[in-house]
Amino acid sequence: MEEVRNKYVAIKSHVNGAPTESDFEIKSETISLTIIGSEIEAIVKNVLVSVDPYQLNRMKKQSSSQAAINFASAIIPGHAIDSYGVGRVVASGRADLEKGELVVGLLSWGDYTLIQKGRLLNKLDPMGLPLPHHVGALGFSGLTAYGGFYEVCKPKKGESVFVSAASGSVGSLVGQYAKLFGCRVIGCAGTQNKVDLLKEKLGFDDAFNYKEEMDLNSALKRYFPEGIDIYFDNVGGAMLEAAVANMNQFGRVAVCGAISEYTGNGKRAALQMLDVIYKRITIQGFLAADYLKCYADFIEMTTKFLRTGKMQSLNDISCGVESVPRAFIGLFSGDNIGKKIVQIADDE
Amino acid sequence: MEEVRNKYVAIKSHVNGAPTESDFEIKSETISLTIIGSEIEAIVKNVLVSVDPYQLNRMKKQSSSQAAINFASAIIPGHAIDSYGVGRVVASGRADLEKGELVVGLLSWGDYTLIQKGRLLNKLDPMGLPLPHHVGALGFSGLTAYGGFYEVCKPKKGESVFVSAASGSVGSLVGQYAKLFGCRVIGCAGTQNKVDLLKEKLGFDDAFNYKEEMDLNSALKRYFPEGIDIYFDNVGGAMLEAAVANMNQFGRVAVCGAISEYTGNGKRAALQMLDVIYKRITIQGFLAADYLKCYADFIEMTTKFLRTGKMQSLNDISCGVESVPRAFIGLFSGDNIGKKIVQIADDE
Repeated sequence: MEEVRNKYVAIKSHVNGAPTESDFEIKSETISLTIIGSEIEAIVKNVLVSVDPYQLNRMKKQSSSQAAINFASAIIPGHAIDSYGVGRVVASGRADLEKGELVVGLLSWGDYTLIQKGRLLNKLDPMGLPLPHHVGALGFSGLTAYGGFYEVCKPKKGESVFVSAASGSVGSLVGQYAKLFGCRVIGCAGTQNKVDLLKEKLGFDDAFNYKEEMDLNSALKRYFPEGIDIYFDNVGGAMLEAAVANMNQFGRVAVCGAISEYTGNGKRAALQMLDVIYKRITIQGFLAADYLKCYADFIEMTTKFLRTGKMQSLNDISCGVESVPRAFIGLFSGDNIGKKIVQIADDE
Repeated sequence: MEEVRNKYVAIKSHVNGAPTESDFEIKSETISLTIIGSEIEAIVKNVLVSVDPYQLNRMKKQSSSQAAINFASAIIPGHAIDSYGVGRVVASGRADLEKGELVVGLLSWGDYTLIQKGRLLNKLDPMGLPLPHHVGALGFSGLTAYGGFYEVCKPKKGESVFVSAASGSVGSLVGQYAKLFGCRVIGCAGTQNKVDLLKEKLGFDDAFNYKEEMDLNSALKRYFPEGIDIYFDNVGGAMLEAAVANMNQFGRVAVCGAISEYTGNGKRAALQMLDVIYKRITIQGFLAADYLKCYADFIEMTTKFLRTGKMQSLNDISCGVESVPRAFIGLFSGDNIGKKIVQIADDE
């Protein structure tokens, strides 16, 4: 019975505020590569795993809103942390999966994943595209961008779209979907480098560095003299307030993330409800999981866009299990450009 | 050429904060009851006029959100103030209107209304119902309640509905629509008297006095142990925050008013956006005017409910032009029970 060492990342205790290195530990255990019993239906050697801001909310002491939904279940101190990723099957108890097959699903921040019964795991046909694309643009970040833009924002051609955290995993895709759909798109990000990238590589009509703006409200007035029709919100806080103040009648806000509020340092958005009423604004929170019904369309469209070069998948890749904590912490200071992924191992 | 004195209410200058008697003046002018020129297409002797909280927003210095939409145009100091109401035609230049006919539309807070071309004015068939019903339950308050509940809240039978300012002009109707539709309905109001009325006369499942609750969040947890599916928001501020915190997945907030914020004294709602995301809450501002397409259905259903006694129209009536300022000011201290209406004159 072959045994291996499995290193994985865990939190030492619940995380409050911004995460630091000391919140994490790299644990190591010996695991058998043979499936024993019926609890585990596959063992996967992890190749690439996703690193996402929302995980921080799962590391906090459970909130009532999270308790309500099982896929944002709390991360337990000392336990492996699940995350979307790509890997290879090393042992399978499932009739439809064979050893050596490439899979995508909920893996762990670690060398191996013991796939419990019913856990999301599908065969992956890379369709000639690089594996990181399947973690980012074709993974949950992509579905979030697709469902959020097409289903929540309900865009019309020619509308003005504002995207915050526009160089991030989801924002960078939303901006591109919106351009390809026929909208005018302006994004904001936190460095000049990112701003250049949005304009030069991703085709945004314009972009600005929000850190260089003293007054977000005036900045948005300048960039959207005709008002905002759609705001794809990844950050919450002051930017959400300013966006609502600059929205047009029947404007839509897709609330995808509120990263400025995740660490507890940022102030909550205190919206001007008179704007919401008089301009008949709709503000809607959503999760990618609600748009699984769009999965086939999403994959078809996005694969085509990526293949033809109409869309770019920005992947920001670190290497090794040990790099996960730093990669994760960096999300909250804007270190990443595009989708943050950790390459756990080479795909042999 | 018959002439009459026309007394009307005006603001002396833009109103900031809570309105007081000194913000208003009763002006008097002599008007001819003969139509001269083509600007005026009818002259109406006002019988009943509506007094609504949203008027305060029109008395402020114009905000960007109001400037965007013409039917919330600023009220100009010294000028007559338009408001929904019922009256009698005393002179008509319109082929479809005759002297003596009963009409409903945008009248003035005054004895007479000079109806400018294109201004909303329709013949009124009272259908055997008291005239005040046509200002409240069958007027814009009713359409607001109907459009807001059926179109914005998109209710399902059995859902739990929370209504704030539940004994007010709109709230009292929303609660009754929701009960008749098959929802569980709980309202809040600001006096024991109003709370009793909601439970005993309007059929609410339960009601509470928010002024007696130290912690709105806990109060809502107590009244909605299974969570809120629909929140019909008339008040904004702390109650909106507490409602969002207590909402169920896929909950809907119809933002009809934010009276706690109108006078500038109340704090804005600083929503927990994580709740909005994880629970996929939709928050939607709306105006009755967006639901004119439902007008015929609204009138048919509401007339039937009122006729058969399934629905009550609560009207709180003051008398005389001079009573308008006090009636209006009282809206912001919760003096009214149900729809606030001023009877300008008897209908002869």
